[in-house]
Amino acid sequence: MARTSAEVEQELARLEVETPSWGYGDSGTRFATFPQAGRPRDAFERIDDAAEVHRLTAAAPAVALHFPWDRVEDLGSLRRHAESRGLRIGAVNPNLFQAAEYKLGSVANPDPAVRARAVAHLLECVEIATELGSTAQSLWLADGTNYAGQDDLRARRERLLESLTEVYAALPPGQELLLEYKPFEPAFYATDLADWGSALLCCQKLGEKAAVLVDFGHHLLGANIEQIVAILAAEGRLGGFHFNNRKYADDDLIVGSVNPFELFSVFVELGTDLPRLTIDQAHNVEAKIEAMTLSVVNIQEAFAKALLVDREALAAAQAEGDVLGAHEVLLEAFRADVRELCARVREAAGGAADPVAALRESGYVERIVRERGAAAPVSAGWNA
Amino acid sequence: MARTSAEVEQELARLEVETPSWGYGDSGTRFATFPQAGRPRDAFERIDDAAEVHRLTAAAPAVALHFPWDRVEDLGSLRRHAESRGLRIGAVNPNLFQAAEYKLGSVANPDPAVRARAVAHLLECVEIATELGSTAQSLWLADGTNYAGQDDLRARRERLLESLTEVYAALPPGQELLLEYKPFEPAFYATDLADWGSALLCCQKLGEKAAVLVDFGHHLLGANIEQIVAILAAEGRLGGFHFNNRKYADDDLIVGSVNPFELFSVFVELGTDLPRLTIDQAHNVEAKIEAMTLSVVNIQEAFAKALLVDREALAAAQAEGDVLGAHEVLLEAFRADVRELCARVREAAGGAADPVAALRESGYVERIVRERGAAAPVSAGWNA
Amino acid sequence: MARTSAEVEQELARLEVETPSWGYGDSGTRFATFPQAGRPRDAFERIDDAAEVHRLTAAAPAVALHFPWDRVEDLGSLRRHAESRGLRIGAVNPNLFQAAEYKLGSVANPDPAVRARAVAHLLECVEIATELGSTAQSLWLADGTNYAGQDDLRARRERLLESLTEVYAALPPGQELLLEYKPFEPAFYATDLADWGSALLCCQKLGEKAAVLVDFGHHLLGANIEQIVAILAAEGRLGGFHFNNRKYADDDLIVGSVNPFELFSVFVELGTDLPRLTIDQAHNVEAKIEAMTLSVVNIQEAFAKALLVDREALAAAQAEGDVLGAHEVLLEAFRADVRELCARVREAAGGAADPVAALRESGYVERIVRERGAAAPVSAGWNA
Amino acid sequence: MARTSAEVEQELARLEVETPSWGYGDSGTRFATFPQAGRPRDAFERIDDAAEVHRLTAAAPAVALHFPWDRVEDLGSLRRHAESRGLRIGAVNPNLFQAAEYKLGSVANPDPAVRARAVAHLLECVEIATELGSTAQSLWLADGTNYAGQDDLRARRERLLESLTEVYAALPPGQELLLEYKPFEPAFYATDLADWGSALLCCQKLGEKAAVLVDFGHHLLGANIEQIVAILAAEGRLGGFHFNNRKYADDDLIVGSVNPFELFSVFVELGTDLPRLTIDQAHNVEAKIEAMTLSVVNIQEAFAKALLVDREALAAAQAEGDVLGAHEVLLEAFRADVRELCARVREAAGGAADPVAALRESGYVERIVRERGAAAPVSAGWNA
Repeated sequence: MARTSAEVEQELARLEVETPSWGYGDSGTRFATFPQAGRPRDAFERIDDAAEVHRLTAAAPAVALHFPWDRVEDLGSLRRHAESRGLRIGAVNPNLFQAAEYKLGSVANPDPAVRARAVAHLLECVEIATELGSTAQSLWLADGTNYAGQDDLRARRERLLESLTEVYAALPPGQELLLEYKPFEPAFYATDLADWGSALLCCQKLGEKAAVLVDFGHHLLGANIEQIVAILAAEGRLGGFHFNNRKYADDDLIVGSVNPFELFSVFVELGTDLPRLTIDQAHNVEAKIEAMTLSVVNIQEAFAKALLVDREALAAAQAEGDVLGAHEVLLEAFRADVRELCARVREAAGGAADPVAALRESGYVERIVRERGAAAPVSAGWNA
Repeated sequence: MARTSAEVEQELARLEVETPSWGYGDSGTRFATFPQAGRPRDAFERIDDAAEVHRLTAAAPAVALHFPWDRVEDLGSLRRHAESRGLRIGAVNPNLFQAAEYKLGSVANPDPAVRARAVAHLLECVEIATELGSTAQSLWLADGTNYAGQDDLRARRERLLESLTEVYAALPPGQELLLEYKPFEPAFYATDLADWGSALLCCQKLGEKAAVLVDFGHHLLGANIEQIVAILAAEGRLGGFHFNNRKYADDDLIVGSVNPFELFSVFVELGTDLPRLTIDQAHNVEAKIEAMTLSVVNIQEAFAKALLVDREALAAAQAEGDVLGAHEVLLEAFRADVRELCARVREAAGGAADPVAALRESGYVERIVRERGAAAPVSAGWNA
Repeated sequence: MARTSAEVEQELARLEVETPSWGYGDSGTRFATFPQAGRPRDAFERIDDAAEVHRLTAAAPAVALHFPWDRVEDLGSLRRHAESRGLRIGAVNPNLFQAAEYKLGSVANPDPAVRARAVAHLLECVEIATELGSTAQSLWLADGTNYAGQDDLRARRERLLESLTEVYAALPPGQELLLEYKPFEPAFYATDLADWGSALLCCQKLGEKAAVLVDFGHHLLGANIEQIVAILAAEGRLGGFHFNNRKYADDDLIVGSVNPFELFSVFVELGTDLPRLTIDQAHNVEAKIEAMTLSVVNIQEAFAKALLVDREALAAAQAEGDVLGAHEVLLEAFRADVRELCARVREAAGGAADPVAALRESGYVERIVRERGAAAPVSAGWNA
Repeated sequence: MARTSAEVEQELARLEVETPSWGYGDSGTRFATFPQAGRPRDAFERIDDAAEVHRLTAAAPAVALHFPWDRVEDLGSLRRHAESRGLRIGAVNPNLFQAAEYKLGSVANPDPAVRARAVAHLLECVEIATELGSTAQSLWLADGTNYAGQDDLRARRERLLESLTEVYAALPPGQELLLEYKPFEPAFYATDLADWGSALLCCQKLGEKAAVLVDFGHHLLGANIEQIVAILAAEGRLGGFHFNNRKYADDDLIVGSVNPFELFSVFVELGTDLPRLTIDQAHNVEAKIEAMTLSVVNIQEAFAKALLVDREALAAAQAEGDVLGAHEVLLEAFRADVRELCARVREAAGGAADPVAALRESGYVERIVRERGAAAPVSAGWNA
């Protein structure tokens, strides 16, 4: 029996997505970064933009931060600013890829001094998270090599694990360590945490507070993401998601813009036991706040459709080996138009019926362009 | 310091490759299987062909078998036949993909009766291996689904593990269980053991006699196979290889024919601590015995080049972060012409200096065509 | 301004899909073909199944045939049988991959005798098409090589072109030559017509009656199919489609089952000027007639959504460089639930409101199982 | 009959590779650019580095330039500087991706003013080439879109062609237009010139002085590059190469570092009728001048091995359909150790026997670090 409409709305209302502070800043490719007018000038303004997305969608109550990009003098004031905007601080994301020292890696670098620096930054981020009330370190390692032979692959893993063990030991109660994997870029021969198996092995060795973070764009073409989700969830090691979409590599496009059926399938696999859900995108050519708003809407709609799946009918068809009958149960839910359902849930929570239209009508973007200016100095992000 | 020539030859002489009985029979794609004249008519003749490859290369002393394709009335006679040809029986490969019952899977099938049949076949293969003196079950599972929703991904894994647990318990001392993974084909949505992480997780749950088998063609494009080898070896779970090469999918071409540098890199990673090495190829359009002979030669040459790597120079360059210096140590070994070195080692062990030329001159193929006939009924293999 | 509902229904009613006779027979992978009960025993019964799909969907009035698989003694009776079932004969598909002679290729084979045989078969198919009232030769070439050096790539193309020139010259008025491309399988090194550029070059040399056929599964991962469609259409060389869907390689799954948004995007690109649309799938594990019915429904829904796109709003947003505004025009149409719309159009044309449900209720499958039997000898298809 | 050693050396001595000025500057990924000490401060110093590579390899007598990165006040002095260093100016590479105006494309931009600016830059580059004695415009277009619907794919192609037609008309005698293609990055939905078919179609419409440039890293995974070469060469439209190597996407690694057999196969296909050969790499973590030197050496060795192929034996085996015999002719040449052969040819032409070792011993790098400094301001390249 499928859920009643009321049950669907109730579950849908519980959806919470973290938006990333760095998603409001300028981003680009190695070829160019195109600055956008009205870009936030500091972490406070990035939180303002995140608050606007939450105001519109009623489903983005947390903002993930990135250090040192979001460094401020007084973390307490940043936390209070977020709270005053109706937000909480989401995961803290350390940066171990930008400094010149990290050319050959951070926590897996052959040079112990560089590893020490990396560990120190991670430990600093643990403290930052504590001050901000954040419950997670979300760690993406760019560590890897570009050429066969460049470094010893096993030694790198040992160093990586040794470094993380030190950080893990420093985690206070209530903080977890999320480990992200990625097959390539910026490393083009061997990335030290290249796939979910690699990340899971590390988590097993670290302890129960370590879990794997799945980024949609961090897979080789063809990988079945919902199956990876299923395995990690069954192991109790699914720490969360970085939502985005890609057609080719780690394109960091708007979630749901390439294959919305895949996004739906991931939510079908998750059920209602949602882990931490975070958007991680690079809006290189499109309007950033609208892109973030649309992303949250796409996630809401995918989750809504997944909630419409008739689980009993699905289980029955599966048990009978009715291949198409089972598949059609999913299709039936996916074909539904959930725009009105989502609008109702958003409005009941104080959001907008049509968040993208509401944003366009609100004048918010025009106002920040006016206030922040078109030529604001680049202050954060992938703005080199 | 690099190895001395004598040391290289000594290590190289220890190389042992298993050739697969099914590699001597007809194989094809879903579009056609082109029968070859002289194809062996039964398991005894397949062993004869394997013996010819060993005679020429002096490095293929074992033959992997596949059941029921290699079924005979008297296993003892088959074992004695192999021994009389100077061979031993390699891994035993059960077949869980061909029977009509397996349309929706074998050990993970939703129907308990099908799972029971699959387990029974696996248990039978354990006994077969014991009789044949084989030390390994080499298990490739075709289990998976073609459509989202077709079956419950978590339930399938539970069933799979439950089935394998029963088989694992029946393994006698001296028999190990090798688990192979593969991302797709014949399943086109979700394969139950799709990647090394998946297979490793199962092995961890089964016990210490379970290890992962890496097939070169069973990866999504881009996967770094030598890194997977490094991780599995470090975990003590690298059970062996299925050698072949591919450009696109699971093409099952001759090992080393697409990217010999990748094959070399895998041997660099392995060092001299070699696991079970088996060829698993489908010679659809090329002469089968020559293809197998060339495959063993390609493996010998790759291993020989890997033995030439100056490990001290490599470690020194790696420690200094000398990216190109380290890479060039590998290049230096790869550029060497090892044909004479390999010829010496083969001849010292009773093989041919140039195995492919020797095969062509031997008249072996002409003889089997004469004896076995061109129109021999298809008796095994992917000969549908 | 978007189309009115009446305009959408009118256009949607014009949709015509060819279903393939071979899609009703048994198919499989190189590992196994699982026979299905009730499988048609000859071309007449395959046409019966195609007629059932058309009865349900009111959008599948043609059936594509494959020779020699659909060979009958009297082509006239086959044509009349189709017409009596309300169908016409779609494209004729020659078979140049199954005979033993074609091991090293057909029209590009190094052996002139083999090329002559291939050309003779193609010329025979031209005559068959004439007798059947078919307007197209739909040619997929499996020609290619498995190893570097195996054959001269340029010479192969010259032979291929020479062979096709002979066939092209024999085309009667009203018959066109569709050339299909595919990157790999069964050839695993170099396929002679590997991509659309390759096929288009041949068509340019052959003449105006030659056009490119796009099969969804015949692309390397990542290829943008709707862009290829756009280019070929602009060149006047888009001959038609083979619909299916894939996640990995040429998986031949049900169209729309992996990425329905991509299917929609292709229809957005096509507009209302539809070329020949044919389904080409292999229903290895699912019920075949239901699979074909669902496929037609998926195509109808994708086309319906594409018809809902507000072209004026789209053009306006594009002209302004409003990246997200333009994208959202597409999203708006894709999110619509078009099940009722499609049901209305089908019912108006004599089809079923819900074709899959109607098929399940009709008893058709039970009847053919009874009549044709479960153990019918394999008579056609990839049934090895 | 294979070439004599003297013939091989004679052909090998004719090899000429262009190195790219931008390959001597800093490059990186979107995540970071790691500056290298001694990086050239202007176009003159980049030419100095190119001259050093030519001094060592005796096979890199031309340097490709990139504008505006290599802009100088007096082009004549730049040309004389190159000549004084024993170099000539290779292809001129316009930049249509870095300016803020190009966010939505350059020659295909929906805004006519932006297209006009792009055309003006291209026309300026035609004049620059004339002044520098360059014989080619080498054009890579980053134009494309990130989202379905973002722009009209056909309209973009029309604009692109219209823009290029204007530039083509301005080409003086002796200047050709090379068109490069690339499947993705920076565009992540549809790149306007995504594949060779796309580029070739444009060249056909432009005229005989337009030809396709093949960049090794600009293909979807699996593409057979040597086959593309064969087709373009047969059409008389192979304008040249950008050499590099990749494992994943457009990794821009050292040519030959991932798959040297593929590089060899491309040279086998080319024969001795070599088109313009240019290196295009990004040395993100490795020493740049050594990387360039090694790249030229890798190209020399691949070409040398290709020259060793016994063409008569190859043709004979191909004619007989001897699949492995033909493949083994290639293998035989590839297995040869050509280091001494290449050393002889280099030394005869005034280069170094071992260019990489000679560079390390020369003190060149230490000297430029001293002279140019470690903190030189970034003056060119992908240094954002």
